Amino acid sequence: MREICVEASRAYRVQVGSGLLARAGEAIALAHSPCRAAIVSDSNVWPIYGEKLVNSLKSAGFNPVFFVFPAGEASKTGETYLTLLNFLAENRLTRADLLVALGGGVVGDVCGFAAATYLRGVEYVQLATTVLAAVDSSVGGKTAIDLPAGKNLAGAFWQPSLVIADCDALATLPPAVFRDGCAEIIKYALLYDAPLFALLEQTGLDFPREEVIARCVEWKRRAVQADEFDRGERMKLNLGHTLGHGVEARSGFAISHGCAVAIGMALICEISAAKNWCDASVFQKTKNLLEQFGFSTACPFPASALAEAALSDKKRRGGMVSLIVPREIGRCDIVPTPVDGLLPLLRLALHG
Amino acid sequence: MREICVEASRAYRVQVGSGLLARAGEAIALAHSPCRAAIVSDSNVWPIYGEKLVNSLKSAGFNPVFFVFPAGEASKTGETYLTLLNFLAENRLTRADLLVALGGGVVGDVCGFAAATYLRGVEYVQLATTVLAAVDSSVGGKTAIDLPAGKNLAGAFWQPSLVIADCDALATLPPAVFRDGCAEIIKYALLYDAPLFALLEQTGLDFPREEVIARCVEWKRRAVQADEFDRGERMKLNLGHTLGHGVEARSGFAISHGCAVAIGMALICEISAAKNWCDASVFQKTKNLLEQFGFSTACPFPASALAEAALSDKKRRGGMVSLIVPREIGRCDIVPTPVDGLLPLLRLALHG
Repeated sequence: MREICVEASRAYRVQVGSGLLARAGEAIALAHSPCRAAIVSDSNVWPIYGEKLVNSLKSAGFNPVFFVFPAGEASKTGETYLTLLNFLAENRLTRADLLVALGGGVVGDVCGFAAATYLRGVEYVQLATTVLAAVDSSVGGKTAIDLPAGKNLAGAFWQPSLVIADCDALATLPPAVFRDGCAEIIKYALLYDAPLFALLEQTGLDFPREEVIARCVEWKRRAVQADEFDRGERMKLNLGHTLGHGVEARSGFAISHGCAVAIGMALICEISAAKNWCDASVFQKTKNLLEQFGFSTACPFPASALAEAALSDKKRRGGMVSLIVPREIGRCDIVPTPVDGLLPLLRLALHG
Repeated sequence: MREICVEASRAYRVQVGSGLLARAGEAIALAHSPCRAAIVSDSNVWPIYGEKLVNSLKSAGFNPVFFVFPAGEASKTGETYLTLLNFLAENRLTRADLLVALGGGVVGDVCGFAAATYLRGVEYVQLATTVLAAVDSSVGGKTAIDLPAGKNLAGAFWQPSLVIADCDALATLPPAVFRDGCAEIIKYALLYDAPLFALLEQTGLDFPREEVIARCVEWKRRAVQADEFDRGERMKLNLGHTLGHGVEARSGFAISHGCAVAIGMALICEISAAKNWCDASVFQKTKNLLEQFGFSTACPFPASALAEAALSDKKRRGGMVSLIVPREIGRCDIVPTPVDGLLPLLRLALHG
């Protein structure tokens, strides 16, 4: 097991390793005294790990209740959030109690947002069961729900008290879900870590789980500690995401988050190369690595439609949007761009 | 005009005086550069001040849009909150834009919660048009919505960028709404300020508006600066509120917030006197002052029903609830009380 300590507005441990879910109760008891614990999970994850977690929590002295919603991005709504708040109130959870997110990014985001706002804030723990949650969404305290107008448009910064990523859980993921999270791993490599990029080129999908996940969490830790509230360094973690969120939204969420971010990364690399902001090899190597992992890098939408969808993204600030632009493998810059400048840039890589 | 500067996690001014609404745009422009400004208001306040505010904002260079919902506590729901979030997203407000609450406590709480969570936080301004909002809810950054299970059960701490309380607006309030906020003024006097208590005994409802409101805001400033997140000193501002929220909830919100808090204050004074925690004169004087302001101090519910309703309150923490107990006029203490101990205490003042 590897452990990373994040020192944000709240300090907490991120544990990455094997067999951690079965002993989650013990680990949680070191971070929070026994209390009522509301487990939040989805219809995919709960049948596999729910009973194991309930038993582990009971053994550690917790009094668990559970709230399970249908798996998938379509559940990440205001309605699910309000239903969860009502569940917590009906079960009379107090400020001394705890929420436990058991699942991937959607579960963690919805559970975290409820924790941030129920009684104006209660503690929560993230038990990440997907690659995406393990390397990205479970760490750093960004919580959110989607609105009809776009993804993650409401939420709060609210740090968890503990994060556990059980590498064994990743082995049970459907291949497409496993791969989806790998887009974020490739993102860290392109952003910060040329040696990791080289390792991924060697291993493809067979990368060493614990080592690579812990390495990504370490990069995330640095970004979060440098800039918890996303006004500077942390914005770099949006590499591929402004365009990616546009792809995701434009597809009506038929294209998954990871697949959309892969397209977004390929696009921004192609744009960067076309503008001579980076060498053409950066685009080619990134495109190759994404395709080696099984991602399509072709954007199915014309430039105008993508620009329109991408500008609904919350990264827009007044008349500007901050693009994260690769300079070389392992180094990217934040490039503030006028809203009107996005479409011409997209036309460097796309028709229409 | 009097001005109080609150130095919380965000520093901001509270302006109390006459004729301030008509010049709100200028004042807001000193706190926030011109942008899109979403005014949030209710069906009572908007027809009176909406046009004036829109004009003032336009003159100051802002681009206003507005969202108006039916007046009253019944609107302080998750549904209103989600509808407002969608309105903000459809109007493409960005993190550089601004929300403006124009109204009383309900408007300020809902608008503030939307500001706290839309795009994970945008700035907002409070234009308080009721006594309650002026002396209490507009200052200090507590935002909230109600859930079916109880009042203010979801929300966030999120400080405004500016608060303006226009004393002229108070002159147009229906007498019952004006009085409602006076319960909070009497609360500050009982909590902290024996001279203010004596002044109110002399003036009754004819107290000098600007002076008294600014004095209450100053007490609130001290409590918020000492304890922004409500773990110690700020909890004293709950004087009369744990029982008051119980009265309000038990009445199905037919009893207004101020009237319920008045009953809650009278009850806790009676209990405190019965336990010899304070002199009987504290109860008698408080009861007299509340009745002088036109409040009923008789609780219409039996002890058991009130205990049940009060324990849904979010001030409960594990098995304990923090009661704020008067010791003398101008001095109160926090008394942590086991949940089981509440009913016997209530039976000192109520049957059943």
